[in-house]
Amino acid sequence: MPPVAPRSGDAIFASVERVNAELFTLTYGAIVRQLLTDLEEVEEVNKQLDQMGYNIGIRLIDEFLAKSNVSRCVDFKETAEVIAKVGFKMFLGVTATVTNWDAEGTTCSLVLEDNPLVDFVELPDTCQGLYYCNVLSGVIRGALEMVSMKTEVTWIRDMLRGDDAFEMQVKLVKQVPEEYPYKDDE
Amino acid sequence: MPPVAPRSGDAIFASVERVNAELFTLTYGAIVRQLLTDLEEVEEVNKQLDQMGYNIGIRLIDEFLAKSNVSRCVDFKETAEVIAKVGFKMFLGVTATVTNWDAEGTTCSLVLEDNPLVDFVELPDTCQGLYYCNVLSGVIRGALEMVSMKTEVTWIRDMLRGDDAFEMQVKLVKQVPEEYPYKDDE
Repeated sequence: MPPVAPRSGDAIFASVERVNAELFTLTYGAIVRQLLTDLEEVEEVNKQLDQMGYNIGIRLIDEFLAKSNVSRCVDFKETAEVIAKVGFKMFLGVTATVTNWDAEGTTCSLVLEDNPLVDFVELPDTCQGLYYCNVLSGVIRGALEMVSMKTEVTWIRDMLRGDDAFEMQVKLVKQVPEEYPYKDDE
Repeated sequence: MPPVAPRSGDAIFASVERVNAELFTLTYGAIVRQLLTDLEEVEEVNKQLDQMGYNIGIRLIDEFLAKSNVSRCVDFKETAEVIAKVGFKMFLGVTATVTNWDAEGTTCSLVLEDNPLVDFVELPDTCQGLYYCNVLSGVIRGALEMVSMKTEVTWIRDMLRGDDAFEMQVKLVKQVPEEYPYKDDE
């Protein structure tokens, strides 16, 4: 049997079960609000959102691999493109642009011009240090860790802080040689 | 111009922006987990989920009215049907059944056999008192309050507790006579 071709982000997004984006946006907003109330410190909220994203990412990668037919990427450049064009599309319905590669090919930026997480969101003055979308960087970190790539993901631009786009810098710190992070019988 | 006909839940759901249901499910799971860690008491988590749902519902009703072309329902019976067939479909992609009406027509049940919130969810023994889907009852309470109906919404059956479906009892406590709960210039 010939290998199954990877599917486009559009095709996958059209075929998976979906919920209303506004419900998702408002639900995410309710989390952030809840964390701000419970934790008080904006820095702590940033950490928690990142951790929540990480926990989501380590599970979402399974759905991604199952639905996308994407197999092993040849290098980090291909990985970044797949996240931008297939991953974002499949889960959020938008695509990102990959840019700002460093000379070694281990650091790049993912740029989002459309971001369903922030529809209707305005940050009050008391939340100026908040990385509202920190869940996204956590998801990417968690998902990549499950395919043996240890990364650091940081926000470079943020439209809620007045920038013209959302830009996440993804830095490949270490590539672990195993095929899979866990065995089937674990 | 003739009045615009109300749109079916299917038609609206097909036309609104959507995100991947698994992302939503995992994000909601991350909230519940976070609340369990922060608040410790299951009763407190139930309250917070309900309050979060209420906050979401009072905003979601605007999208519902804008997209559905549903105008004033003639009575609570019609309201319940619209929630079950249009509201649930429009936001979660599933429909509910309305049943168990009392003689006065002020209390009924919404029964969900398919519930995207609970995919992959299993409650550990320590969470037996948790109403995992309490956000949903909160959303309905909040949304109805914005159209002048004060309700109490309680869970009667819960698949995470071993029941064969999810059943919410919705009780109309008071119908406030105003047309809208707020003025345009407020």
